[in-house]
Parts: sequence; structure tokens; C-alpha cells
Amino acid sequence: MALTLTPIPGIPLIYPGDDLGEIIYKKTIESHLEPKPGDIWVIAQKIVSKSENRIINIQTIVPSARAFEIANKTLKDPRFVELVLRESKTVLRQKPGALIVEHKNGFICANAGIDHSNVESSQENPEDWVLLLPEDADKSAQYIRAKLENLFKMPFGVLIIDSHGRAWRNGTVGTSIGLSGLPAVVDLRGKPDLFGFKLKITQVGAADELAAAASLVMGQADESQPVILASGFPYQLREGSMKELIRDEKEDLFR
Amino acid sequence: MALTLTPIPGIPLIYPGDDLGEIIYKKTIESHLEPKPGDIWVIAQKIVSKSENRIINIQTIVPSARAFEIANKTLKDPRFVELVLRESKTVLRQKPGALIVEHKNGFICANAGIDHSNVESSQENPEDWVLLLPEDADKSAQYIRAKLENLFKMPFGVLIIDSHGRAWRNGTVGTSIGLSGLPAVVDLRGKPDLFGFKLKITQVGAADELAAAASLVMGQADESQPVILASGFPYQLREGSMKELIRDEKEDLFR
Repeated sequence: MALTLTPIPGIPLIYPGDDLGEIIYKKTIESHLEPKPGDIWVIAQKIVSKSENRIINIQTIVPSARAFEIANKTLKDPRFVELVLRESKTVLRQKPGALIVEHKNGFICANAGIDHSNVESSQENPEDWVLLLPEDADKSAQYIRAKLENLFKMPFGVLIIDSHGRAWRNGTVGTSIGLSGLPAVVDLRGKPDLFGFKLKITQVGAADELAAAASLVMGQADESQPVILASGFPYQLREGSMKELIRDEKEDLFR
Repeated sequence: MALTLTPIPGIPLIYPGDDLGEIIYKKTIESHLEPKPGDIWVIAQKIVSKSENRIINIQTIVPSARAFEIANKTLKDPRFVELVLRESKTVLRQKPGALIVEHKNGFICANAGIDHSNVESSQENPEDWVLLLPEDADKSAQYIRAKLENLFKMPFGVLIIDSHGRAWRNGTVGTSIGLSGLPAVVDLRGKPDLFGFKLKITQVGAADELAAAASLVMGQADESQPVILASGFPYQLREGSMKELIRDEKEDLFR
């Protein structure tokens, strides 16, 4: 079966308090797309964060001594660094231009996912406004999923994604930060291969594969297509969580 | 525009010397699929390696002293480790059960991509047979692309993928190991975002996003769908190379 990723056209700019489920429903109906039971909605983190009012003016932030110290090393704004630290558990790496942390929610990323770009503001200094990740993106996904299932009267998965850099490789890829109603990792341990041997590859990062696929369609340059309908996800849907994707610190060779 | 990933049905078991371009052409015509100019063929590394006769019996391998040493630390077969070392530039990490290296072709992966599973053999000890990555997967992609373009009389991209583990996250994802006729990394530096700011995210690992998408459709459990036709890749095709994806060692914070 084919996998198809279709952008929902006409998603408007999102503002704090907007009901994403209702907006997605309305734009899907208007565009005559017909979701099927078991389809997965892939949603850009930015519009989730905006709907949850995770926009902050860094002028309101007072940096700690540690933030000043890291700002010196990374050549970043100490107020921005302070926000990154508040959103993080641990700093993994710092060098001029780069600050890699463990986000409060457990995953590793640059700047705790805080971003300037595509933050609209009518203020005088628009560069002062930044966007934090959702407080708990699994919960955000649950909430949007419940809305969509209720409106469409059918079961779905919901996946919230961001663009992450990676160790060893150039280029960002779409990566899961929250999900509901789909497996994050699919466990194939013990399944036989084509010739009856046990498979060596045992756990598939299925949600991250879907995140990367949807990211291609969203378009990085202007994020004008922040909602993607994915049909043909090949694994059985079930309750899932970001926790499945996060490697235990003791098992991780690259911290 | 939607992105669609369609498996080519009926690809047979591949043997050394098989002409992948011809086989893909024949099976595509038989299944009444109609590729369009600019579509991308995503091909599992395993069938490329098999067609290139990269199958080796580890009974023929004499391990070096260094291979014995690493085999002790990783609890792997010293002959297998010897093969990994021959295919690698550097060992990054070793612990019981894990051997992470820089492959000769520059990318970081476990076991230099050498694998037991899905290696068919009529021999007495089938577990002795392993499969190496293609010698130069960019060249393999070029070769298959030339064949397919000649048979279908239209331009294509070709992407060869494997499943790689990652730092920090559980689960493997489909990852590029060779390509021809598509950008590996798309450079968006300096492009404006929705509100006219410069984008922070500047380089997209587009080939790896496509690799992950296609991997979902191939299915890990039996690799019975090793060829995927991708329509709707959103970036302009051009000559490309794996080198684009490999982060310079000096820039890499996680070696």
C-alpha cells in the first residue's frame, strides 16, 4: 500500500487561543479532502505553540549568572540562553553558535527548540519575540486528536513535529516531539527476515520516519503548510508516547 | 502538492549480477504504475549490495590483533569485526553489543552497515554469510539512474537507503547512503520566513527525509518491498552527492 502525505490548504496564521482541531476540520472539509479512519495528522510544532500562547518577549527575561556564562561561550543573547536553560534539564554541548540541550521533555535538541523565525508580532522589536515548544507536546497531541476524532467521528493519530539537527550529518530533518494514537517505536524483535533468520534491526523509529516524510511536504522556507494528512501508515495504531523514542541516558553513547 | 510513496510490487530475490534497472523497469510496467519525469526511485541498500556481489563468508576472514581486541570489548565475532574495520576509517564507540564507526564513505553507522539478516544462502552455515554496503553507493545510484532514465526515457533521481540507529533516540530510521540526481541537502540560507525574517533553519536534509519516508513503506520485517517510487518531492532536482550530508569532523560536536 502507498503512503500519501497531503497538505491541508488554507490553514490561516494561528494566534493564541485558536482551536487547531476546529480549524483543521474546517479547512479539510473546505478542500474536499476525505480523511479515513486510521489516518495520521502531522502538525508543525509552531502552530501548536502559537495556539498555546508559548510566545515570549525576551525583554521580560532576567538572565542568571549561568545564562551569562553560556551566552559568552555560545555568542547568544543571555536572555535567550536563560529561556533555553529554563526549558532544559542539561546542557550537552556549547560552542560559538551552538547550544545543544536535553529538553525538559527528555529529547536532545538545539536551543530547547526555541526559535525566532515565523513568530509574528506587531511590536516594535519583532526579533525580541520567541516561541517555546509546547509545555507537553504529547498532551497537545492528545487534545487535538480528541477534537478531530469528535468532529470527524473516526479514529486518528496525531503527531507534532519540529525540525532537528543531528549528530554527524548536515541538514535538519522533521522529528517527533509529541504524539497520540500511534506507535512512536515499533518493536520487531524476534520477527523472522525473508529467509527465516531473526532480524538484526529490531526497533523502528516509525513516528520519526513519518515526521521526516511530513516535513518534506510542509516546506521549511515559509511553513505555509503546517498540517499534513498522512494515509497509509503501515503499522497498527495504538496509544503511544514520546518516551518510547528517548534513549535511556545510560544506554546513550553520544551524550 | 502531495508526496506519494508507492512500492513496486513483485521485485524478486536479487542475486549477484542482476540488473536492478531492468528488473525495476519490468516490474513497474507489469504493475501499470506510471512514473513521471522528476520522480525519485528509492532503493533498499540490500538489493543493491546483492546485485553487486557484496556477500562474504566470514569463514574466509582472518582477524587482525585489533579486530580480536575490539571483538573482546563488543562481544562480536572477531571475523565480523575485521570486516567492519576494513570497511571503516575510524571507530567512534565500542561497548558490549555496539560498534559505531565512520564508514569509508564518510558517514557514521553501526557495524559499517554490515548485516546478517536477509542474506540468502544455500550453504550449510547461512549465518556465516554477511552483506557489505556497496563500495560506492553514489556510483551505484548513478548507474541505476542511467539505466532507468534510458529505459523510461525521462529524468529521475535515485536514492539508496539503509536503516540507521541514531544518537539519543531509540528506533532506526531510513537514512541515505548514496544518491544521484537529487539534492542531498537543500540550502535555504537567507530565505525569508512568513514574516520576512531570515530563517533560522537553513539547511534541510531533504534526501534523509525522503529516505525515512520510503523506509516506512519498505517494511523492516521482511524487506519484501525494496523499491519505492516517490512522486512529489518538493525541491528542484539537481546533481547531488552523499558528501553534502556528511558533517565536517571539525564541526561535529558528537564524535
